[in-house]
Amino acid sequence: MLNWTWFKSTGIGVIKFCTQCGTDVSFIVPSGDTHPRHVCISCGHIHYENPRMVVGCVATWDDRILLCRRAIEPRLGYWTLPAGFMENGETTAEAASRETWEEAGARIKIEAPFSMISIAYINQVHLFYRGQLTSPDYAAGEESLEVALFRPEEIPWTDLAFRSVELTLRHFLVDTQLEQFGFHEAALPPIA
Amino acid sequence: MLNWTWFKSTGIGVIKFCTQCGTDVSFIVPSGDTHPRHVCISCGHIHYENPRMVVGCVATWDDRILLCRRAIEPRLGYWTLPAGFMENGETTAEAASRETWEEAGARIKIEAPFSMISIAYINQVHLFYRGQLTSPDYAAGEESLEVALFRPEEIPWTDLAFRSVELTLRHFLVDTQLEQFGFHEAALPPIA
Repeated sequence: MLNWTWFKSTGIGVIKFCTQCGTDVSFIVPSGDTHPRHVCISCGHIHYENPRMVVGCVATWDDRILLCRRAIEPRLGYWTLPAGFMENGETTAEAASRETWEEAGARIKIEAPFSMISIAYINQVHLFYRGQLTSPDYAAGEESLEVALFRPEEIPWTDLAFRSVELTLRHFLVDTQLEQFGFHEAALPPIA
Repeated sequence: MLNWTWFKSTGIGVIKFCTQCGTDVSFIVPSGDTHPRHVCISCGHIHYENPRMVVGCVATWDDRILLCRRAIEPRLGYWTLPAGFMENGETTAEAASRETWEEAGARIKIEAPFSMISIAYINQVHLFYRGQLTSPDYAAGEESLEVALFRPEEIPWTDLAFRSVELTLRHFLVDTQLEQFGFHEAALPPIA
C-alpha cells in the first residue's frame, strides 16, 4: 500500500514522452537548475513536477465529528476525514467544502485552517480546516462505504486510514478540551 | 504580465501529447470524474493537474524584514519576500528555508506558518512562514538583483511584486504591533 501511494504520488519515472512534441524525455538537471527534471531531448521542454495538496475538513455537529469509511484504495474500509486532491481553479477552503460534499454529502460552514502536514516522501501537503455542518444531514458519496458522526470517545483510532487524519483528530480533541483552537503544523517521515 | 503568469501556472492547454505513450490527448471529463482532464485517446492515461504551492518566509533581523528585488520575470525589478515553487521531496518549512537561501543567501530559523493565500485563477497557494535570520548575512542569489533589510517605515509598498507579499507584510506589521502573531488565510480574486 505504501509503495502504491508513493508511486502514484511522486510521479517519478512516470513521464516518458514530452507533453509538447511527443518525443522521449531525459531525467536530467537543466542548465541553471538545482533539481533533476524530465526534459525533452527534442524541443527542450522542461516538465516541472511539484507537491500536491490534499485538503479536507474536521466537520462537526455539536460534539460529534464526521468521518467517512473509504470505498477506494488506498486504505479501503478504513475511516478518514473527508479530504482529497485540491483542484485547479479553487481555493483551499473551496476544496475542503467540495470534498466534504462529494465524500460525505454534507454541507459545512468553514471556520478556520486547523492543521497542515507535510509528507515529503509522497510529495503531498495535507491541509485540514475546521468546519461546522449546517445540518445533521450526510450521505456516503461514491468514494465512501458509509459516513457517520462520532463522539470523541467513539473515534475508531485503530481503524483510521492515514496518520495525518489521526494527528489532526488528536490535536482537535486537545484543542476542544482547551477551548482554544490553534493551527498545527507537522511533517511525517516514512513509515519505518 | 498577468497573462504570462496565468499561462505558466495553469498548464491549461499545455499538454498536447500523452506522457506514457506519446499519442495525442483530448481534454474531456473522464467517466466517473467531475473535472475535465487531458486524457490519452490511445492508452487512456489521465493527466491530472493540481495547484502548486509557492512557499516563502518573512525573515527578520531585529525589527527589519528581508526583501529581494527580482531579477526575473514576472515583476522583474520589484521587491518580494523570498519565495518560490515548493519542490517534490521537501516539507513546506524546508521549502521556505531553501528559497530564502537561494534567493537571499540567508540562513533562517523557522518560527511558524504565518499566511496562506489561495490565488485560484492561477492555480497557486502562497504560504509564508515567519523566521529569524541566524546572522545579518545575506547576498543576492541568481534570481535577485539585490537583497536588503527594511524597517517597517522603509518598506517599498508601491514597488512590491505581488499582492500576496503586500498582504502578508501588512498582517506582519499589525501582528508585530499587537505582539501576537496569528495564522492568516485569504483568497485573492483576479485583478480587475
